[in-house]
Amino acid sequence: MQRWPHIRSKPLADFRIFKVRSDVKLSPRTGKEHDFFVLEAPNWVNVVAVTPRDELVMVEQYRVGSDTVELEVPGGVMDPGETDPLVTGPRELREETGYAGGPPRLLGKVFSNPAILTNTTFTVLIEGCELKHATDFDSGEDIRTHLVPLAEIPALLRSGRIGHPLVHVALSHYLLLRGESGDGK
Amino acid sequence: MQRWPHIRSKPLADFRIFKVRSDVKLSPRTGKEHDFFVLEAPNWVNVVAVTPRDELVMVEQYRVGSDTVELEVPGGVMDPGETDPLVTGPRELREETGYAGGPPRLLGKVFSNPAILTNTTFTVLIEGCELKHATDFDSGEDIRTHLVPLAEIPALLRSGRIGHPLVHVALSHYLLLRGESGDGK
Repeated sequence: MQRWPHIRSKPLADFRIFKVRSDVKLSPRTGKEHDFFVLEAPNWVNVVAVTPRDELVMVEQYRVGSDTVELEVPGGVMDPGETDPLVTGPRELREETGYAGGPPRLLGKVFSNPAILTNTTFTVLIEGCELKHATDFDSGEDIRTHLVPLAEIPALLRSGRIGHPLVHVALSHYLLLRGESGDGK
Repeated sequence: MQRWPHIRSKPLADFRIFKVRSDVKLSPRTGKEHDFFVLEAPNWVNVVAVTPRDELVMVEQYRVGSDTVELEVPGGVMDPGETDPLVTGPRELREETGYAGGPPRLLGKVFSNPAILTNTTFTVLIEGCELKHATDFDSGEDIRTHLVPLAEIPALLRSGRIGHPLVHVALSHYLLLRGESGDGK
């Protein structure tokens, strides 16, 4: 199985948090050109922040796509010039919750949506988190912090309480690290 | 925590698989209007298809956003007029792989991305799957089927081999159903 050869790209629109372009690719199956719409966005980072009391630092915030209030982990967009998710993670954690902790560590990564988005989402683990700073919200943010016992994570995932797939993935990365995925490793 | 009151929406562009609109909402924190860009898309369905030999039916396909070949579960967009993911799931499984099985069952759902997308992604479980039909690809598809032992799912998730977050979520939903998430339920 191979990548489809690239024919041409064309920028179409700029919507601030993402740009839309068209990509024309050559289908190896049909031999014909096929055009797709692609969203360009900077990389995203989600943070699994754990306190010394086995709590997960979570954030509740309004999400405009779903028009719902979602329970998520802290996270955000890598700033221009920021190339290391281990820099973005602690910054977003501090800005959104005021918490800070020990050295950040990369837990995993996925594409944000390989069908339509060009970017990657990283999961960063920060342990030993304590409330140390004031929060610093972006103008489009209004965030409430919750501490949730780590033992409740599987129930949160199973119940559907976690509506953001990239947050689900971040928590799954953490369960897999802890060997709680059923394969005994 | 509350939803932000809606002020107005404005359609901006139609890119076939999604439309872009702007939504202006009132921030409860600042009392000011804030505008967001939102992607409208039909709901998506992913299928955890299992054979009587404890294999998962997976598909390998080129993804234009990431420009990579991804190992995924079968799935796709709910057709116009299709309102039941339990109809979409078996149809997509048949079209993409030729497999069909027993009665479909809803395993879970998440928003596709509540920050920017309006739609929902459902995970549907179909057991007892066997190869019964010819495949029927869309013009933009070229799909290869793989049978993967169920026992390999945690390693697939841990290794990063699964790059699509909604596929990661689908497999996590299945592990959670089987009680393989570490909380003993």
